[in-house]
Amino acid sequence: MEIHVISDGKQTVCELTKRIVMIHDEVDYIHIREKTKSVSEILEIVSILLNNGVPKSKLVINDRLDVALLHEIPNVHLPGHSFPIEKVRRMNPDLRIGRSVHSLQEAIECEKAGADYLLFGHVFPTNSKPNLAPRGVQQVAGICQSVRIPVIAIGGIIPNNIPKLSGMNLSGIAVMSYVIASDNPKNALQELRLSLVEVRNRENTV
Amino acid sequence: MEIHVISDGKQTVCELTKRIVMIHDEVDYIHIREKTKSVSEILEIVSILLNNGVPKSKLVINDRLDVALLHEIPNVHLPGHSFPIEKVRRMNPDLRIGRSVHSLQEAIECEKAGADYLLFGHVFPTNSKPNLAPRGVQQVAGICQSVRIPVIAIGGIIPNNIPKLSGMNLSGIAVMSYVIASDNPKNALQELRLSLVEVRNRENTV
Repeated sequence: MEIHVISDGKQTVCELTKRIVMIHDEVDYIHIREKTKSVSEILEIVSILLNNGVPKSKLVINDRLDVALLHEIPNVHLPGHSFPIEKVRRMNPDLRIGRSVHSLQEAIECEKAGADYLLFGHVFPTNSKPNLAPRGVQQVAGICQSVRIPVIAIGGIIPNNIPKLSGMNLSGIAVMSYVIASDNPKNALQELRLSLVEVRNRENTV
Repeated sequence: MEIHVISDGKQTVCELTKRIVMIHDEVDYIHIREKTKSVSEILEIVSILLNNGVPKSKLVINDRLDVALLHEIPNVHLPGHSFPIEKVRRMNPDLRIGRSVHSLQEAIECEKAGADYLLFGHVFPTNSKPNLAPRGVQQVAGICQSVRIPVIAIGGIIPNNIPKLSGMNLSGIAVMSYVIASDNPKNALQELRLSLVEVRNRENTV
């Protein structure tokens, strides 16, 4: 299963890049999701990461399609309030386009529109959405059954609840503060990975 | 002299578009500068304006280069914390690229980098920058003398202080809340235009 780590917008350029450089070897994708940072700060983040050996292919730019286009970063992630998938695809057929979805219907529509993968959540209760009920594991399973493109689950995922996501053909998980705001991001990530491996092993022996 | 009207980021999509539709006939450029609105809200603004007869050629997209590229809007305005001018120019040679500057040196550098025009300010005291001393008329005059590309002045410009900007080869003025937050935007704009015409007539008779 893929692991996506998403920046939480709460760290300085220095703090954030230090943490990502520390963990990039063990993640599949790193989403730069910095809603309140300026373009020049985002470009600084990208530049520090590339200069410290983080491969471009692991970087995903959230919402700022222009940053991805100008700096030839091959992955963008579109929140629901961003550009229509079709328009982005027409402009750049080679871009890997992810899309956040919050319902089965939206998932089906976004697959049809040409998304390369879907990010669905939030699955479990999470501090980042304290007033919104989690959408639950059943909905993730329903979406995984209904679309052919990869589905990544997000929201409140910690090692302890990863077993609940087993057996549903999920392609990966995404975490935000659990890793990026952790005192020990590398350790947090290793525990997630361990839990994922255990689940996969159990699935394979069933 | 050109008149640029810049959105102030404080109005709803409905309020803002209503005001722009009301005044677009009498301005040269309308800057969509909406730092906290989502891409889909900005696209909605653009779409409403175009559907109501505002010409694309008058629209200037602030910072969101991707919105301009995807919707073929020919003008972008780059704040100092946005993309480097050269990179944007290389990506799209036909785009009209404006740049905000705050000093003579920055103005010279941005002309060299390929900006099509400069926006310099703030010239007069303004409520939008209450803790920052205005840069004054002398600096505007110095920049107008030192660069060949058009210079647009911004910051606290009202009909009464427009005469202070005469005789310096300024290409235009930009206003934000004075027009866009006015109870009567059309009237506010007409008073600005009147003052500009008076100044121009006086210059021509000297």
